[in-house]
Amino acid sequence: MTTLLHIDASARTERSLTRRLSAAFVAEWRRHRPSDPVIRRDVGANPPPATTQDWIAAAFTDPAERDEAQRDALALSDELIDELEQADILVLATPMYNYGMPTALKGWVDQVIRVNRTFSFDLARGDFPLRPILSGKTLVLLTSAGEFGFAEGGIREEMNHLDTHIRAIRHYLGVAVYRHIAMEYQEFADARHEQSVARAHASIPDLVRTLQGETATAQAGMSPSNVALRG
Amino acid sequence: MTTLLHIDASARTERSLTRRLSAAFVAEWRRHRPSDPVIRRDVGANPPPATTQDWIAAAFTDPAERDEAQRDALALSDELIDELEQADILVLATPMYNYGMPTALKGWVDQVIRVNRTFSFDLARGDFPLRPILSGKTLVLLTSAGEFGFAEGGIREEMNHLDTHIRAIRHYLGVAVYRHIAMEYQEFADARHEQSVARAHASIPDLVRTLQGETATAQAGMSPSNVALRG
Repeated sequence: MTTLLHIDASARTERSLTRRLSAAFVAEWRRHRPSDPVIRRDVGANPPPATTQDWIAAAFTDPAERDEAQRDALALSDELIDELEQADILVLATPMYNYGMPTALKGWVDQVIRVNRTFSFDLARGDFPLRPILSGKTLVLLTSAGEFGFAEGGIREEMNHLDTHIRAIRHYLGVAVYRHIAMEYQEFADARHEQSVARAHASIPDLVRTLQGETATAQAGMSPSNVALRG
Repeated sequence: MTTLLHIDASARTERSLTRRLSAAFVAEWRRHRPSDPVIRRDVGANPPPATTQDWIAAAFTDPAERDEAQRDALALSDELIDELEQADILVLATPMYNYGMPTALKGWVDQVIRVNRTFSFDLARGDFPLRPILSGKTLVLLTSAGEFGFAEGGIREEMNHLDTHIRAIRHYLGVAVYRHIAMEYQEFADARHEQSVARAHASIPDLVRTLQGETATAQAGMSPSNVALRG
């Protein structure tokens, strides 16, 4: 059994390109493995709030010492981290807003990356005191951008703080294997956009087949050939 | 008269390094120019919410056609953009959270960058259809990071999606002149951190003097020597 965590971050609930793509991925997955559990987290429809001073203080308090207000301050964070812990595959669908993550997705990230839950901190490690706690997960990142040229070598590469940012933090989400499918040109509404969306959808069956082969191999106790999967 | 927009994004209201630095900048500014107006926006204490599907629909509706619910959906955005429009100098103080902007600051950005208010959109411009509407502003960006090495050539340069992201969107905020003061090493709480904070505070008087010279020159109708100011 492989558990999927299906996250949508688009503010649009209708006509969202990323919601349509993540739904296609999950549908294709379940077509082959109907009994695999899917955890659903819609941060676009229900944005996790910004962390507060009380949240920070509670996170740095020993769990045994937390009072009720502190437990409340961390309740949503606990819930989101529990979901992430259970997940083998993170299906994260997000549009680019102002060249980065939507506020709602950054809310999820700031709630989830937390000391002693998703990373440990120890100054004895010298100049690299943080270490991820979670491991072994696969991230399928599905993005959409209004403009184009955000990939390496593209004309807007330097503007891109969406997938590059998520790659930078992926180890703190326990991500070992990273795959990214990007749609672009949305605001041009032209043939390039149609091709970009069509290509993204066309790549889903192969990606699902590959990942299901990997997890079957891993569950049979064999070493997965991660090299082929790293995007 | 020069109008400052003073924005703090830290979730901490006590013991915040960036709040202390932005307060020092504003105090130094007013020491020389006590009657310059300062607009205050505390997004750390009052995080602007994520934009919604209704917000997006309202933003793309002709202002004359908007109903009351749509005007309500954009009310905070209007207020934040009005503040930005009035500002000559944006004093933006923010910690790095998970290698990027705090959720609260991304909330401000997503509320402020809006079609027909801060950028125009025209496909007749070809592959670059967006154009900023605001112009001529100075951004003083004050940041703090727990780790270090985020500047160009640093060991964590590739992890940095804070000032690099804000630089990427600065034109949509009307920013022509960009200055950045970074504090680092916060979580090491060592001499390197103390030096980093001390250096940041020590650079404030010179920066204020330079910017006040610039604005005096600009207000006298002379062309400012922007070259020296670009950070």
